[in-house]
Formats: sequence, structure tokens, C-alpha cells
Amino acid sequence: MTDAGWVTSDNMALLVDLYELTMADSYLRHGLNQRATFDLFVRHLPRNRAFLLNVGLEQVVYYLLHMRFTDDAIAYLRSLRRFSDAFLAYLRDFRFRGDVWAMPEGTVFFPNEPVLRITAPRIEAQIVETFLLNTYNAGVMYASKAARVVLAAQGRGVADFSPRRDHGTDAAMKVARAAYIAGCVGTSNVLAGKVYGIPVIGTMAHSYVMSFPTELDAFRAYAADFPDNAVLLIDTYDTLQGARHAVVVARELQERGYQLRGVRLDSGDLVRLSREVRRILDEAGFPEVQIFLSGDLNEYRIRDLLAAGAVADAFGVGTQLGTSADAPYINGVYKIVEDELGLKVKLSTGKVSLPGRKQVYRFYDGQGRMTHDIIALHDEPAPPGGEPLLQEVIRDGEPVVPLPSLAEIRQRAQEQIAALPEHLRSIDVGPDAVYDVRISRQLQATQAQVASQALALEHQV
Amino acid sequence: MTDAGWVTSDNMALLVDLYELTMADSYLRHGLNQRATFDLFVRHLPRNRAFLLNVGLEQVVYYLLHMRFTDDAIAYLRSLRRFSDAFLAYLRDFRFRGDVWAMPEGTVFFPNEPVLRITAPRIEAQIVETFLLNTYNAGVMYASKAARVVLAAQGRGVADFSPRRDHGTDAAMKVARAAYIAGCVGTSNVLAGKVYGIPVIGTMAHSYVMSFPTELDAFRAYAADFPDNAVLLIDTYDTLQGARHAVVVARELQERGYQLRGVRLDSGDLVRLSREVRRILDEAGFPEVQIFLSGDLNEYRIRDLLAAGAVADAFGVGTQLGTSADAPYINGVYKIVEDELGLKVKLSTGKVSLPGRKQVYRFYDGQGRMTHDIIALHDEPAPPGGEPLLQEVIRDGEPVVPLPSLAEIRQRAQEQIAALPEHLRSIDVGPDAVYDVRISRQLQATQAQVASQALALEHQV
Repeated sequence: MTDAGWVTSDNMALLVDLYELTMADSYLRHGLNQRATFDLFVRHLPRNRAFLLNVGLEQVVYYLLHMRFTDDAIAYLRSLRRFSDAFLAYLRDFRFRGDVWAMPEGTVFFPNEPVLRITAPRIEAQIVETFLLNTYNAGVMYASKAARVVLAAQGRGVADFSPRRDHGTDAAMKVARAAYIAGCVGTSNVLAGKVYGIPVIGTMAHSYVMSFPTELDAFRAYAADFPDNAVLLIDTYDTLQGARHAVVVARELQERGYQLRGVRLDSGDLVRLSREVRRILDEAGFPEVQIFLSGDLNEYRIRDLLAAGAVADAFGVGTQLGTSADAPYINGVYKIVEDELGLKVKLSTGKVSLPGRKQVYRFYDGQGRMTHDIIALHDEPAPPGGEPLLQEVIRDGEPVVPLPSLAEIRQRAQEQIAALPEHLRSIDVGPDAVYDVRISRQLQATQAQVASQALALEHQV
Repeated sequence: MTDAGWVTSDNMALLVDLYELTMADSYLRHGLNQRATFDLFVRHLPRNRAFLLNVGLEQVVYYLLHMRFTDDAIAYLRSLRRFSDAFLAYLRDFRFRGDVWAMPEGTVFFPNEPVLRITAPRIEAQIVETFLLNTYNAGVMYASKAARVVLAAQGRGVADFSPRRDHGTDAAMKVARAAYIAGCVGTSNVLAGKVYGIPVIGTMAHSYVMSFPTELDAFRAYAADFPDNAVLLIDTYDTLQGARHAVVVARELQERGYQLRGVRLDSGDLVRLSREVRRILDEAGFPEVQIFLSGDLNEYRIRDLLAAGAVADAFGVGTQLGTSADAPYINGVYKIVEDELGLKVKLSTGKVSLPGRKQVYRFYDGQGRMTHDIIALHDEPAPPGGEPLLQEVIRDGEPVVPLPSLAEIRQRAQEQIAALPEHLRSIDVGPDAVYDVRISRQLQATQAQVASQALALEHQV
């Protein structure tokens, strides 16, 4: 046991499906390393999602700029006895030197729209696939889920409490960042707070309450230690009794010139209990003490709680946010669309793709509300009035522009979500929850032409 | 952008929910750092799971032995202006010095059974909670899902093809390891191959086929490069035409003294297509060429494919394996069960816990088939004939025994799954899929006594 098997900058180049490397070896042997273009896109929306929120670019840029095959990595690959010496020598000098166009993080996007486009020598474009998809599929999934939870909370705060249920350590970091971009107010994950500068949030656990002879003892101790930031967990034994204990502590804090910040309810009938707790606090003269709700929450439950009259100032959401439990994966794919032989389509059943280097244009109405997108060929004249969503990020392996800060990305996401057509902002995704994504006439014509050529070619053989 | 926010040995101590640290600060101030015992267990089986497979201990042991708060970490915590100087000084010297008892990895377990038990000064036991749960909840989830996929394949190979859809980079590593423990034959994840010594597996992508003028050109190139290990992806354009192209290449390889290893089908009606492809291969004189199936597979689909007569030698399973899509989280919890004031129970609605330091005993019939488990107090006489599942792993912060190798863990898992009662080995989890987990009389009596004392104490206030 030398470490815990974590992926880091030193070994990230090996986080790759084996076939990427065997294909690359073959390309090298056959002189097939001319430039090619690949698109990263999502074919279909997952169930319960009316839009997707783009998160993942920053880590992908870091990866593309820094990925290297160390001696250690080369030695392992050699030990597999599959790869040619020429290919291993090639990997030793490997650097990504291609071009990247991508939608900024925080941009809303829809099926079939490329969110990232790479043009590079074929091997460079190919072997980054696994890492790119791993990063985007996770980031987009988390951000798109969190955006729904934030919408359901109707302006109340939502905190990411998910680290204990996330799919490993990297997921815990990515969830915190994506959730913050999507509008959450903070995270319980201290490392995410440190690395990303996200506000960290926390109250106390049941075990804390149980570590004192009585609940009241526990509340008094915590209030003494954190008098200006105490949120008391009141459901360890009996929630209403807990609320009365909180009132005792609120009075004692008041006498010392402090204000109890809040109470948290984590179990039971949250509608009834939150209302009764609110009444107990109000009648005792503490209308300013906030109520935090947690415990198996998600956007549906928050919607239902609020509709049923639950009283809440903020929500802590863990498991279902961090695992995107109702749609636990995004089917992002990465497909070749052009190479030196021409434009490419894939014809497998149900999977016809859009060929060529493309741009996505977004159109807004006079009130700044999104009306439709147009997917067009990169080189055709831009349709007037459209916002081109794909921006040049890396040229010849070098960054073109500084990436936006997390605050800027979060701002972009808020603006994008606010600009969504109203019927896409509902958490209930019905059959009408479809955004108008158009294919330009030129791209349609090109697709038809390329598809018929490919079919004809195949049946010649 | 200094790195990509990965969790490593240097910063893992900060992968912690904020409240663990605020509670710990409070414990320190109140002199509440006597020894306490916490259990890690699962309250309920997730839907569609009849058993859980224990994976996660090795990384947890690594964490407990190596976690430290660096100067950098302390500086960040100080910047939050919440923590006492005494606590920050305490963290600077922090080392885990407690005791750990745990089930070996590869052990099958059931709800309410502690899979890990920590006895340590309260702060040490408390602040490891987030990392422990993150690790176990992920590992157990992946292993338990993979075990089902392997069972459904009825002896055929199952390969982990999930990295592109896993929840981040650490998930990709954990899925590969857990899936291998659960009986998968390998992974496409090259880094997992390197770090864990798992066999790596791969074929080719559609983009490879599309990178040559024709499919046949692509197959010939690949067979030339990897003549003794070529698996051809035949569904890029037309699966049956692809199979005929594979026959051409198989003949050419045969003439050179090689044998085509296999073909892969990734889309379409896999039952019909796999049978027709088998027929094409057989009629051409290549019955030994294997058929690999992939494409949105899971245990149900594999079961249905085989039941409907699909022909397959092995399956590549990605998304649904790596995200445990039908049960994308495990509700593992970590609860205090004893401290210097006595035994502890939690009484929150629907969450009554088992107090005290416990052991789990497993009983087998004469054929080695599991019959039942007994959860008992650690200090009561061991019930005769039972296998104690919790083993001492760490004592006073030092490892007690070397951990088993991955091969040994995998072997343990195979034996455990083989020993399951037959009705728990079905992937259809009905209401009868319940394993007999008993609570010893002494533990029952203790639980009742502690619960009534706790209730009485609360209502005094």
C-alpha cells in the first residue's frame, strides 16, 4: 500500500481507456496522425432534465496543458507487451498541441450541441477522450442537478452536504464546485472551501448532542464556543423538546449580547415540525432564529415541503444532490466529425451525428430570454444576432485567454438559468420541455451528403 | 489554476465536513476527548440489492495511518475565524492513535452490521467520519453492483468499461478496483491496471473505424498491428457487413498463422445480431472467434439477452456498472455507540441504533452455505460455531496485521458470494430476499435498557 490510488497531475495521462492507446499506436504505425476534429456533446437529455449546465472546462484545460507520460507510465505500458517501441517513444515526448474551442463554464446547453471541439493531430485528439468525458460527464451532471435543487428552493439557500455520499474523493470536490456554480451558497466540504474559495457551512451532528449528558448541555456548550454562529441540531431525541431547549439557549445568548443563528431539523415530518418549531421560536420572541432543513432532500421534496407550508430559511442537501440520484449519469460522447479525408458521420443505429467543425449560436428575445439555438458549420456565415457559444480556448497547445474566475462562472450560470424559457425552469420535466435547437440549412445539407456517401462506400465493399 | 483540485495524501485530512471540525474544537474546549466508539454500518439495503460487498478498508487504513494537517491546512482553517488557537495547535500535532476493528474487504454484509468500528479519543474518532463514509459508501456501492453484473453473466467475463461515465477520476479508480474484487475480469482503465495490477482490456472505437477509408481497411490495419489480440468493432456502419469484413480479416490472419480473437457489437438488436454474427463466423469456419457485447448493459439486460438467446463470450459494461445507476448511493452511516458516560443510542424517528462495542458472527451450514449472522456485544461470550467478522486492524494508531493482497480480497469475495443463500443470488430482489441477521439476547436487553434511560433523561429536563 504505497498510496491510495489517487489521480494527480503526475499520473492523469494514464487515466485512459486502454483502447485509446492501442488505436493511437496503430495510427502512428499507419501514418494516420493528420489533424482531425472531435466534438464532445450529449445525445439525449437524461430523464428529469430540461437543460444541462456546462461545467468541466477548467479541469480539462488543465489536463490538456499538463498531461505527460512519465518514465514510470512508459515503463508500465511497456510491461503490457502490446505497444510498439516507436509509440512508447512518441508518448515520452507527448504534449497536446491542438486547438480547443469550448462553451464557457456556466453556459446552459442542449443535446447535439458541441460543448467542446478539439482539432489536433489524430492521436492527440483521440487519447484525451476518456479524461475529457470523465470530467464533463461528472461536472455537467452535478451542475445540472444542483441547478434544479436551487430552482426548487425559490431563493432560499441551498448548501452542499454531500461529501459522505459522493462517489469518491474527486466527486466530492467536483460536486462542491459544480453546485456552487449552479447557485448553491456553500458546501460542507472544507477542502473544496480551501481549493476553490467556496464558503464552507456546517452545524453539528447527532453524535455531538449525544456526547453530552443532556441535549441542553450540548446546546449550551456549542453556543458558548460559537456564540455568533450557532445552529443547533434539535432532532436527536424529540424535535419539539429540542426547540424548547434551543429557546433556553437563545435567551442565554441574548443575555450575553448574542443571537442564536438557527436550528436544524434532520428527520421526521418536516412540514409539521418546522411549523411547530417556528411557532415555538416566534412565541418565545425569537422570530429571527432561522430554520434549516435537511435529511434526504432533493428538488422534488423541497418543492413539496414548501407547497405543504413547511417553514425553512435554507436547505442542506446531500446524497441526492451529490449523486444526481434520479439521473446518475450523463451520456456525453466524443466523436470524430472531420479528418484529412473529409467530413465524418457515424451511422450506427439511432446514432447519426453532425459532421464537420461547428459553431453554436444562441438567440435571445428583447427581454433577454433565450428563444432558440442554431448549430451551424464553423465556416458558414454567422446567422445575424446569434451569440456564438464556442470560444477559442487553446491554440496550438497554448492557452489563448485566461479562464474566468469561479465567481464569474457562477455569475454566468445565474444569468443563463435566468434566461431560460419559463417552461424549462420547472423541475417537472414534461414532454413540452423541449428547447428549440435548429440545424442550419447548410449543415443539414452537408450531413445528408456525407451520410449518403458513407453508406455508398460501405456497400461497395 | 494551480492544479485540478485533486485529493491526495497531502490534503486528504481536509476532505471533511466543516461540522466535524467545529464539533471537535468544542470537544477540546470542554475536555470531552475521552475514548468513544463509533460504528460504520448501513441502515437499509438499497433497492435491488440483496446483499452488500465490503470494499473500502484498504484506503481507510491508509488514511488513518497517514492523515495530517499541514501548515497550509492550518493556515486555511485559521482564515475561517471560527477555530480556537488551542484547537489549531492540536490539529498541528494530530495523528490518529485509536483502535480499528473491521470486516475484511470482500466480505458480504447486511444492514445494521458494523463493518468498521473505531475506538479512539472522541476527536480522533469524530473527524475521520466524512472520509470514512465517502470511501465506504462508494466502494461498497460499486462492488455490490458489480457482483450482480457478474452473477448475471453466468460465468462469462465482465469487463469494466466505465471510466468515461464514472463520477470523476477517483471514482474511475475505485470502480475498477471494486469491480475486480467483485469478479470482473479486468478494466479498460490503464491507471487502475498500473496502480492495482488489474488486467487491462480494450478493443477499438468507432472513431478508429472511421479514420480509415473503409471498415475493412481499418480491420486490416488493426489486425496487422495486434495480430494475436485483435477484437474488431463491427457495428460502425452495418453489423452484419462488419461481421463479413471480420471474416475476411480472420482468413488473412489465419494465413499468417494468427487467430482473430473476437468481434464486438455495441449497438442494435444484440440478440438477433449476435446470433447472426455467430452464424456468419461459424459458417466461415471461425467458431473460435469470440463475441463481445457492449452498449448500455447492466445485469438485467445481460440476463434478458442471455435468456433471449444472445450469443456472447464476454460483456463490456460501462455506465451502469460504474455509476450503480439503479441504486446510485449507499446510506452508510457512522454513529457513536459508546463513550465514557456509557452506551449510546440514537432515538430520532425510525433510526434506533445498536449500542456498545459489537462483534458480528456468521454461521454456515455443512455445505458452507451461509445460514445467519448474529450481532452481539464484543465482550459477551462468542456464540459457538460463528465466524467473527470484525478483525483488529489498527491498535493505538499502528497497523496490527498486513492487509490482504488484491488477489486475496478477490478470492474472499468469490467465496463469500458463492456461500450466499441461493435466494440472495438472484438479481431480482423480491420481498423474500432477506438474510437472517439476529441480535443477541444480551445486545437486545442492553439496547432496550439504554433506550429507556435516554428517553427518561431527556424528559427530565
